[in-house]
Amino acid sequence: MEKAYWSAKARALRPYTAGEQPREKLIKLNTNENAYPPSPRVTAAVAEAAADLRLYPPSDGGIFREAAAQLHGLDTTQIFCANGSDEVLAQAFLALFDPDRPVYTLDVTYSFYPVWADLFGLELRTVPLDKDYAVMPGSFAGAGAVVLTNPNAPTGMAARPGLLREIIEGTDGPVIIDEAYAGFGSHSALPWVGEYDNLLVVRTLSKSYSLAGLRAAYAAGQPHLITALETIRNSYNSYPVDRLAAAGAAAALRDEAWHKECCGRIMKTRDRTRQALIDLGHRVLPSEANFLFVECTDPDAASMFQALRDRGILVRYFGSGRTRNFLRVTIGTDDDMDAFIKAMEHIS
Amino acid sequence: MEKAYWSAKARALRPYTAGEQPREKLIKLNTNENAYPPSPRVTAAVAEAAADLRLYPPSDGGIFREAAAQLHGLDTTQIFCANGSDEVLAQAFLALFDPDRPVYTLDVTYSFYPVWADLFGLELRTVPLDKDYAVMPGSFAGAGAVVLTNPNAPTGMAARPGLLREIIEGTDGPVIIDEAYAGFGSHSALPWVGEYDNLLVVRTLSKSYSLAGLRAAYAAGQPHLITALETIRNSYNSYPVDRLAAAGAAAALRDEAWHKECCGRIMKTRDRTRQALIDLGHRVLPSEANFLFVECTDPDAASMFQALRDRGILVRYFGSGRTRNFLRVTIGTDDDMDAFIKAMEHIS
Repeated sequence: MEKAYWSAKARALRPYTAGEQPREKLIKLNTNENAYPPSPRVTAAVAEAAADLRLYPPSDGGIFREAAAQLHGLDTTQIFCANGSDEVLAQAFLALFDPDRPVYTLDVTYSFYPVWADLFGLELRTVPLDKDYAVMPGSFAGAGAVVLTNPNAPTGMAARPGLLREIIEGTDGPVIIDEAYAGFGSHSALPWVGEYDNLLVVRTLSKSYSLAGLRAAYAAGQPHLITALETIRNSYNSYPVDRLAAAGAAAALRDEAWHKECCGRIMKTRDRTRQALIDLGHRVLPSEANFLFVECTDPDAASMFQALRDRGILVRYFGSGRTRNFLRVTIGTDDDMDAFIKAMEHIS
Repeated sequence: MEKAYWSAKARALRPYTAGEQPREKLIKLNTNENAYPPSPRVTAAVAEAAADLRLYPPSDGGIFREAAAQLHGLDTTQIFCANGSDEVLAQAFLALFDPDRPVYTLDVTYSFYPVWADLFGLELRTVPLDKDYAVMPGSFAGAGAVVLTNPNAPTGMAARPGLLREIIEGTDGPVIIDEAYAGFGSHSALPWVGEYDNLLVVRTLSKSYSLAGLRAAYAAGQPHLITALETIRNSYNSYPVDRLAAAGAAAALRDEAWHKECCGRIMKTRDRTRQALIDLGHRVLPSEANFLFVECTDPDAASMFQALRDRGILVRYFGSGRTRNFLRVTIGTDDDMDAFIKAMEHIS
């Protein structure tokens, strides 16, 4: 590939690798999509919004922002909406982190963080999880800026409230908590945004609201943090949330009964799947997300990944670092997981 | 506003100011939205795509990318899709421009360019238009990187093919031509992307395809340029085009008859509106876009803007620089423009 016209920045970047979107028919347990469809209200809301497509959308997400504020009992000035949580996080990095103040994160966590740090010229420092992949108390002591996934990915493990408070209170600068996997049983820091002026909590509708295809996410925080994010948005792309996404997201957030029902089913399926894998002799980390992180020793994770794929089941294999012997397995329907457990029995 | 937790970058930025989206009922001629609705095929395509919202969209725009390639007789590897042309341009700036090579643009042009330059630490140098607001031959001589809006905004004036070729051939580095207003009669550089390895042409569906609310745009260029943009996208947000936007955009691009019909009506309305304003004694720049740039001397542009607003008509007033005496007026329906012309008669 000729790179004569590439910027120095583009030449130096090593982009994030998203999970494969296969064209063939597979049981797809590799990108943590929800096993169930979104609220039926989404389709109706989208159809209605299609009438106004010739007009620009509101820059701030409009009804989506209002629905998120209402859901959490916040003011709209405490909510920032964008095109998926990757965009919210990218803009939060730019708005709140500085090159001369290292950003602390975990050694096993979302692999997009180092990519944004590279893109924006930030220094990322990692704090090790303990041998059981839990966050160690005191491990962020003295940090000036923190980004934390909770529940963590790809482990699925969530930090307890006391530890979360310790990290927020012990950090001199901004703390971003990425709650992409909220809704599946973990404790959320979102109700604390009024208490802490350095706390930004990021939520997506891709996982628990079954809307990965809609690209809708938001951050909650005090207005002075939200305004910083708006400054970045309005210096990059003024209209990141289209009219259909805003309408669909608002409808999903307003159907809390559907959301609870879906999340409840996934948690039940997750817990019985974990037990079945433990019964087969696997180490499986305790999960409060819609996936399990499964250690494979015989065969190893790479071989297990391939053997599952040969049986028509696609999971996620990261293949490096401390977790090279793990597979990340999204919780599908009960039928999906029965097929997965059966395949694991045959391969082991 | 407390800025204790803002990054130095966020503190220093002066964001782009988008046109007002009024809540009250006004004849809205201020943000260059299309006067007519998008192809009816868009609604049907969006409804169909809503069935798959639980799954991530293709990272590259999928069917939207395919439709754009087909429309222009290009390969999909020559097309890059994103969330509106502001995002395409932001990512193209990052992918192709370097801090140590000044980027040349016009002194009267899209006011987002200096904002991106600030955000990404680039040096922007401006080349003056002549007294009639036309691009002067030779004015980009020796440039190492260029970004050019054609037709230009907010003037509406388009450069002739010979001058466009002179600029592309005379530039040592990348040339980005922003054709947001293509479709309303101007000459396009897009058919030349196979000829020039330094040419990237950016198109949006917001204007001529009546889809400002959908956030869909693309760039066309040789694969080595497209790959640079993909590298930036995959280092920022892997899924910028949601499933509904991709489906709607593809449907719009495939309904060329609707597109031609809409654009034809707007061009006809534009040309008679321009003549009516000239008959009223105004200087109006010749436009190949869906708006007119109108000089106001008695009263001045600021007073005219307010007097129009008092009569329920919203236009765009930039109020600074060489063009401080101009108003930018979007071409609406024939009824909209009759009301506008009548108001101008009464105010003058």
